[in-house]
Amino acid sequence: MTRITEIRNAVVPISSDIANAYIDFSKMTASVVALVSDTIRDGKPVIGYGFNSNGRYACKGLLDERFIPRLTEADPEALIGEDGNIDPARAWPLLMANEKPGGHGERSVAVGVLDMALWDLAAKLAQAPLWRLIADRWNDGEVAEQVFTYAAGGYYYPGKGLDALKAELRSYLERGYRVCKIKIGGVPLDQDLARIEAALEVVGGGQNLAVDANGRFDLETAIAYAQALEPYGLFWFEEPGDPLDYALQAELAQHYAGPMATGENLFSHQDARNLLRHGGMRPDRDWLQFDPALSYGLVEYKRILDLLPEHGFSRANCIPHGGHQMALNIAAGLGLGGNESYPDVFHPFGGFADGARIEDSMVGLHQSPGVGFEQKAALIAIMREATET
Amino acid sequence: MTRITEIRNAVVPISSDIANAYIDFSKMTASVVALVSDTIRDGKPVIGYGFNSNGRYACKGLLDERFIPRLTEADPEALIGEDGNIDPARAWPLLMANEKPGGHGERSVAVGVLDMALWDLAAKLAQAPLWRLIADRWNDGEVAEQVFTYAAGGYYYPGKGLDALKAELRSYLERGYRVCKIKIGGVPLDQDLARIEAALEVVGGGQNLAVDANGRFDLETAIAYAQALEPYGLFWFEEPGDPLDYALQAELAQHYAGPMATGENLFSHQDARNLLRHGGMRPDRDWLQFDPALSYGLVEYKRILDLLPEHGFSRANCIPHGGHQMALNIAAGLGLGGNESYPDVFHPFGGFADGARIEDSMVGLHQSPGVGFEQKAALIAIMREATET
Repeated sequence: MTRITEIRNAVVPISSDIANAYIDFSKMTASVVALVSDTIRDGKPVIGYGFNSNGRYACKGLLDERFIPRLTEADPEALIGEDGNIDPARAWPLLMANEKPGGHGERSVAVGVLDMALWDLAAKLAQAPLWRLIADRWNDGEVAEQVFTYAAGGYYYPGKGLDALKAELRSYLERGYRVCKIKIGGVPLDQDLARIEAALEVVGGGQNLAVDANGRFDLETAIAYAQALEPYGLFWFEEPGDPLDYALQAELAQHYAGPMATGENLFSHQDARNLLRHGGMRPDRDWLQFDPALSYGLVEYKRILDLLPEHGFSRANCIPHGGHQMALNIAAGLGLGGNESYPDVFHPFGGFADGARIEDSMVGLHQSPGVGFEQKAALIAIMREATET
Repeated sequence: MTRITEIRNAVVPISSDIANAYIDFSKMTASVVALVSDTIRDGKPVIGYGFNSNGRYACKGLLDERFIPRLTEADPEALIGEDGNIDPARAWPLLMANEKPGGHGERSVAVGVLDMALWDLAAKLAQAPLWRLIADRWNDGEVAEQVFTYAAGGYYYPGKGLDALKAELRSYLERGYRVCKIKIGGVPLDQDLARIEAALEVVGGGQNLAVDANGRFDLETAIAYAQALEPYGLFWFEEPGDPLDYALQAELAQHYAGPMATGENLFSHQDARNLLRHGGMRPDRDWLQFDPALSYGLVEYKRILDLLPEHGFSRANCIPHGGHQMALNIAAGLGLGGNESYPDVFHPFGGFADGARIEDSMVGLHQSPGVGFEQKAALIAIMREATET
């Protein structure tokens, strides 16, 4: 039986000079944790790593104050599943002991970091890629060998004009992406439309371009954008209003026939259920972007997936936010609709295995045990350095 | 112009051996912050104190990592209002700079702690009780000199039987409370009914007894309880289901004619708005329990209050969770329906000024500058000791 002998908790900067319509990322940080086990392979302990997805800050204090102590104080046998391996689903209620319901933010990130590290450790102990472990447990072993992905970029940053935007998108196409996403809502509508038209020149049509307002609009502005955007036939119109303003989302569906996407800022199955109940999302065209790493991890994300059929949705409606390998494993192992990618930002936490080839916006899978961090040299180097492992 | 010269950030235990239907409180903690100003009175700096309300843990890490640095790095003039005093409403957007929308938990507590300390400091600088400052700013100077309060208790703890429950409630009546609240949902329905009947023997009728399920029930259980509870004519039936399960709350209103109460685990105006939109709450009888200290502070709580009329509610529907002096000031200064009190738990953070007399469940106001911490000897002693001020 494997025991976790030590937990390291570190913070690294992932700052950049980009901005979306809501925040700038100049002080963005990420937590990195390492679960050191007493199982030795090749003379070294097997270690599970986890980090938090972008857009939310590192959660070192929360991890130190509550969540790591609960894990270290747990009976090691309580973490072990019937197969004798570490089972993150058994760790989850121990992590959440004596937490009141509601208020799903920040702690959902802390639990997500540990959940990722537990899955990485479990898959390494099983000597299997995580997507295999997930598919065997919850998807009758069925794996999508190729996963849809799109290039998220098109941020605002100082001095960036239309030529720079076009050059950015051109470079995504050169790297194998077909669908690209740009930010809107950070400048007035007419300037955003000029950005969109410039982008369309590069990507070759609305079906290859998504736009993301990052929750910036009130209903009136959202409708004005919707009316202006609809003729372009875009891949999707993302997060028009505040993520919790389900009524706005539902009303906007009356004004926009094209696909919409939202959910990256909902961090629990209760919040996700409210979007499904009250948000007017349309299963025949809309997309759900819950980020498993920000939302209490895969254990909770599976609860979200299990809610979908009751509301007419399927896993194929899900393209998680975050652009991280954790979500890629989940997308492959559970048959999601795809996975975000940030080819140029949040490195090295975003992005896939080194040498992963993207063709027509489809990406293949890593073959190494765990989440695949060891297949991304810059990422595993930072994780090891930050956690001194 | 006053400047904040130093911010102290401490954690104190408020553990106890009580339990509700959801958590036990054996490891509960509270943050305490002190904002030390450069205004000197009687040879000492004027200091604003804040703490976090019960049910959520201390947030020291979040305060150190993000929220205190944002306050200390702010231009001191940016915190000053037109009257030349510190204005917490001007601090708020600085505290929340570069925070994404959604995910309202934990950070809402951290901001609430600082908001409380900013209001305490502002009122002390104005040499006025906080309720006066609030009433002058937002209520045409009108103050409720007496505020309704009820005794929240009736927790489960090891070995506590019906006699102990009755003795507890009897002691609340002796201390001037008319309305008392007990927990339900921690034992099977028949045992809870025995607790309720024992309680009724003491408090003298359903109109004097509230019950609180702490979000424990699914719809089926909530309906079973509703049917069993309705004949008692209780003061309220609190938080039957998960705080984010608005559909459950709305459906339950079809099965329970008596007053219901909820909201203590909703921490933003966006979450509160969803309860008002989707929760089926009835303005003619139901109660809203948002806790300003857990919900980004009074600045955000005022946004919640401003939403009420559109949904048919008024401030009189609001009885905040928490049992702290901050909410008492707000209740008096903004004309809320009342304020919770924990006569026997969460001391000394709960409770009113020393010597505050409660008669027929009404409590009077402190007359000292600030929130009134200095009028509660045990509380101000802990705050000073923890922050070394």
